[in-house]
Amino acid sequence: MKHVVIVGGGFTGINAAKQLGNRRDVRITLIDKKNYHLFQPLLYQVAMSALGAGDISEPLRNMLARYRNITVFKGTVENVDKERKVIMTDFGEISYDYLILACGVVHHYFGNEEWEEHAPGLKIIAQATEIRRRVMEAYEAAERTTDPVERKKLLTFVIVGGGPTGVELAGSIGEMSRYTLSKYYKQIDPKLTRIFIVEAAPRILGSFCPELASKATRELEKLGVQVWPSSMVTDVDEDGVQIGKERIESATVLWAAGVRAIGIGDSMGVETDRLGRIMVEEDLSIPGYPDIFVGGDQAHFSHHTEHPLPGMAPVASQQGNAIARNILLELKGKPKKPFRYKDKGQMATIGRNKAIVEIGNLRFYGSFAWLTWLLVHIYYLTTFKHRVFVLLQWGWSYFTFGRGARLIVNKEWRFYPRNECEPETTNDT
Amino acid sequence: MKHVVIVGGGFTGINAAKQLGNRRDVRITLIDKKNYHLFQPLLYQVAMSALGAGDISEPLRNMLARYRNITVFKGTVENVDKERKVIMTDFGEISYDYLILACGVVHHYFGNEEWEEHAPGLKIIAQATEIRRRVMEAYEAAERTTDPVERKKLLTFVIVGGGPTGVELAGSIGEMSRYTLSKYYKQIDPKLTRIFIVEAAPRILGSFCPELASKATRELEKLGVQVWPSSMVTDVDEDGVQIGKERIESATVLWAAGVRAIGIGDSMGVETDRLGRIMVEEDLSIPGYPDIFVGGDQAHFSHHTEHPLPGMAPVASQQGNAIARNILLELKGKPKKPFRYKDKGQMATIGRNKAIVEIGNLRFYGSFAWLTWLLVHIYYLTTFKHRVFVLLQWGWSYFTFGRGARLIVNKEWRFYPRNECEPETTNDT
Repeated sequence: MKHVVIVGGGFTGINAAKQLGNRRDVRITLIDKKNYHLFQPLLYQVAMSALGAGDISEPLRNMLARYRNITVFKGTVENVDKERKVIMTDFGEISYDYLILACGVVHHYFGNEEWEEHAPGLKIIAQATEIRRRVMEAYEAAERTTDPVERKKLLTFVIVGGGPTGVELAGSIGEMSRYTLSKYYKQIDPKLTRIFIVEAAPRILGSFCPELASKATRELEKLGVQVWPSSMVTDVDEDGVQIGKERIESATVLWAAGVRAIGIGDSMGVETDRLGRIMVEEDLSIPGYPDIFVGGDQAHFSHHTEHPLPGMAPVASQQGNAIARNILLELKGKPKKPFRYKDKGQMATIGRNKAIVEIGNLRFYGSFAWLTWLLVHIYYLTTFKHRVFVLLQWGWSYFTFGRGARLIVNKEWRFYPRNECEPETTNDT
Repeated sequence: MKHVVIVGGGFTGINAAKQLGNRRDVRITLIDKKNYHLFQPLLYQVAMSALGAGDISEPLRNMLARYRNITVFKGTVENVDKERKVIMTDFGEISYDYLILACGVVHHYFGNEEWEEHAPGLKIIAQATEIRRRVMEAYEAAERTTDPVERKKLLTFVIVGGGPTGVELAGSIGEMSRYTLSKYYKQIDPKLTRIFIVEAAPRILGSFCPELASKATRELEKLGVQVWPSSMVTDVDEDGVQIGKERIESATVLWAAGVRAIGIGDSMGVETDRLGRIMVEEDLSIPGYPDIFVGGDQAHFSHHTEHPLPGMAPVASQQGNAIARNILLELKGKPKKPFRYKDKGQMATIGRNKAIVEIGNLRFYGSFAWLTWLLVHIYYLTTFKHRVFVLLQWGWSYFTFGRGARLIVNKEWRFYPRNECEPETTNDT
């Protein structure tokens, strides 16, 4: 029986595992540093207190329990020996017949990694909790202080990066400050919150058509978000950001700009692009190693496309399915099929009832776009959660402008290190 | 207008605040180090993945938003100047006409505070998340290891302390290991989990009558929990616990034994008992300082009772109400009333469908006791949550033996310290 090892339980890993699950001719080992699968497209909602962490994530063991031939390990993959067909993990070596790498990306700071301290990114739940903590702590500190300049700084939020995540974060803070928080603070007016999107490119939402991006900018402005395009951040410190000669004083800077693939591609001696993504063949295998496949954000796939495929959930899911199908084809002695991305379009939400949607030449915005966004996300979320309560609760809080989960939890209580966990550097999908 | 300052947003603080809310003759400032009120009786359910953190807690600002005369600050109270009638906080001095202290307790380790590293207690959400992380990490490590002795140690859980919290934790682990986890692990049999309650006294549940305690012990045994009475822990290290000459090797030790009042009672120069609780008059004020009241776990109240009133939610709630009433009486020039605890009884749950209840001379156990426990907790939880979804979800997971929230979140991603938070030492109710 062939042994398929999957590294990473994100969209690629979980889809590949399900395709291969309960097949008689393979057994599967899935390794992830986290014990859960994360529905990352809604992670900003956890950061903004609209959803709880448990609402958008599910233990990998739950998701895969019904497949008898799948073993799940929580662990870290350190390297791959391509010749011996063995992966090295923090709990020993595991040999494979087929290897699927889907470790995802981490944020990177263009060589200024020290900025991370002042500008956390948003890739895993712990980061969402940290962002929530910082945003809510800023309001608490603003309520306490009597210094108006300090208060202004505390009520200033800078989001670096104007892609969908940056826009969604900024829109959420705008909406929260304008609609939700006012009644909870007696000393400050949360409506005075200043929010900036600082984007190096000439416009935000560069992957969308200019008309939709412009529409999104207008909607953001209505929520009090100031969009600064053509603005390259040159420094981030604990008091704000420097943008060339301009400067914004801010107690809370969030990073939604660059990402870089997990480092395993570099250490295993295969060709990668400048973002660390592994170059793959049309069938998603690594050149020269037909038994190793790469999918999701970690893969650089640019066959028949002008740009490499973007790091999006639909790409990752389709690649996971395609890799599994190719393995099954090979086991039957049939030729592998080239991967073709079926473009499902892209969308971004700016706030309640406001979104932009682009599906091929079909482009629309406003309430109907938002409804589309909502239905698509509910559909995909429920395919792995099967929990109606989450949706009810979410609908309720959207309806009432409530933010059920506005708790500051992290870091209030520092525990002595027992099992010091390393920074999450692998398997973060 | 008189200024009432409340320190601590637990049951005492929140009840006092609500009683005084929207009264014309007082304004209220409530200070808590956390930004949320916690329904502590169900905190073990968060630690055991049955509920999410948001399900049993609510931001203090939400709870008190409708009271125009209440200001909430998130902050730490460092000392009290009883003569100047001023409290010192980490954001400046605040003067008061009346002061209500309700800061609660922390775990203490009888002079062996270094044990905390190896045996966390359960008082705040961050601790519940940490306990959940440790329990689930132990199962993950057991699944990975091939060493049977190491595996046994990983599947061994020791709970120090046989009060209601210790019993509830042990029962939950027993139930989870016997019913929930089996289908998720392929390499180990979670039913082999060993669980110990180590109690220094001759029996567990000392506050209940011996018959009910004995019944609970029998029920615990059915879940695989071994109860060790008359067992004083003499050392805790990273590999287990020493009990005199006996020893249990365990990767996960949880502390449900001693508590001690928050230190402010010592520093402000008032009489305290050996647990740091402030001695109070019959009207809950401090002797010689009729403008300072103490309630909840922080108060030592032993008028007309054989023992000081225990640290329970009903005591704390009633005291919060009584303090507020006494302040209002004094503002009207009327004499204050002595506090009388209306004993609502006590209960503890061992697992699904198993509980013990003692209300005066009325004592019962089993399904009906469990139903009583459930209804009482649902009733009190909804008085501050008003959220039907939580209950639906909870009911669902009880019904299906599912554990919705079995995520390991904490510590997977260590962030650079920005605002180092001190260990939670005040206002922890």
